[in-house]
Amino acid sequence: MLLGRVAGTLVASRKEPAMEGFKFLVVAELDIDGEATGGYVVAVDAVGAGTGEVVLYATGSSARQTVATDRKPCDAVVMAIVDTWEVDGAEVWRK
Amino acid sequence: MLLGRVAGTLVASRKEPAMEGFKFLVVAELDIDGEATGGYVVAVDAVGAGTGEVVLYATGSSARQTVATDRKPCDAVVMAIVDTWEVDGAEVWRK
Amino acid sequence: MLLGRVAGTLVASRKEPAMEGFKFLVVAELDIDGEATGGYVVAVDAVGAGTGEVVLYATGSSARQTVATDRKPCDAVVMAIVDTWEVDGAEVWRK
Amino acid sequence: MLLGRVAGTLVASRKEPAMEGFKFLVVAELDIDGEATGGYVVAVDAVGAGTGEVVLYATGSSARQTVATDRKPCDAVVMAIVDTWEVDGAEVWRK
Amino acid sequence: MLLGRVAGTLVASRKEPAMEGFKFLVVAELDIDGEATGGYVVAVDAVGAGTGEVVLYATGSSARQTVATDRKPCDAVVMAIVDTWEVDGAEVWRK
Repeated sequence: MLLGRVAGTLVASRKEPAMEGFKFLVVAELDIDGEATGGYVVAVDAVGAGTGEVVLYATGSSARQTVATDRKPCDAVVMAIVDTWEVDGAEVWRK
Repeated sequence: MLLGRVAGTLVASRKEPAMEGFKFLVVAELDIDGEATGGYVVAVDAVGAGTGEVVLYATGSSARQTVATDRKPCDAVVMAIVDTWEVDGAEVWRK
Repeated sequence: MLLGRVAGTLVASRKEPAMEGFKFLVVAELDIDGEATGGYVVAVDAVGAGTGEVVLYATGSSARQTVATDRKPCDAVVMAIVDTWEVDGAEVWRK
Repeated sequence: MLLGRVAGTLVASRKEPAMEGFKFLVVAELDIDGEATGGYVVAVDAVGAGTGEVVLYATGSSARQTVATDRKPCDAVVMAIVDTWEVDGAEVWRK
Repeated sequence: MLLGRVAGTLVASRKEPAMEGFKFLVVAELDIDGEATGGYVVAVDAVGAGTGEVVLYATGSSARQTVATDRKPCDAVVMAIVDTWEVDGAEVWRK
């Protein structure tokens, strides 16, 4: 999984029928220090994350291992909201 | 999923029999601000996207999770046409 | 899928038994304008492509979705020979 | 698999129910000489690794091939603690 | 698949039980001209490759498509020892 910040949302009314009802989040990738890398992903929301929250997202076939995304053409899912992480004993970020 | 702009189409008459009948789109990858990154992918069209449209595409095994692409040697699919997205409360793009 | 040019062939007499009989192609990756990127992949040939031809190749689990490569330790397959593609209405390349 | 150093841990109380009970490790990627590359991954711990240990991690669908992570939305797992490795006959690192 | 040179071996006594008995190879990635790229992977050996040999390796779920690695948390496997390859009619390398 990688760390990301929910930067915003995306609307797509014309889409694969299997993707109806999903909320798409625009997620800016963070590095190990919590800084934006410039990378991003558009992910399905599986945990009710809001704009600004720091999250974990899974990509590839693992993104289909939730009840909602099973057998869907979805390759990225936000599967956790991060409370805190630490590097070498120092807290990098806290919600 | 990543954002892309449909830059054009591709024709391949000699191909895996399982790929007959698909429309191949040449998709230029966009960054979170809607600018071209220089990257691209050739994707199967699952939503009837036309040249110039901004789309979402899924890659890897997730690209096979549509009725059309099931069990096909296809690793990228356009699965939504984007209406709009926003970053930090500001609309980046609207169709 | 990505665009590539068949740059040459590779011989490997000692290999996983499941890979016997495959033709390995050395494929130089092309960008959206048909220029070499410097990247490459060694792919199994599923369409009878020859050196110099421009092809499409699929990677990852999708590379196993042909009759020949099913359940084989193969992560890249040439699955189409490209006739032509266009970008923004202009033909980039024609066979 | 890639080499990494366990840099720290991550806590996420709100997450996909399937991910309850996992320990998330923040793993800094190492190069072939044991130096940090700047890359990282957040991985599930399958071997009881502690902060500072050098480990191997697997990504993608292979990260779900443990009893703990089977059918979970998990795309990275620490699956071994490294004792030593050598390059061209010289030991690079020993635990 | 990508080209690599077996640079050395890796020992990990504490690991996922499913990974017992495997030989881990440290493989330096090669480019299309046979030069080291600086990249690497730690792969399971499926063909009895020795240090210094030039090999092909498969990654992702394809790395589990050998008898040995089936359903194992393994994302890279050496599946062939390269005899020779050529680019544009010129032999790049011969064993």
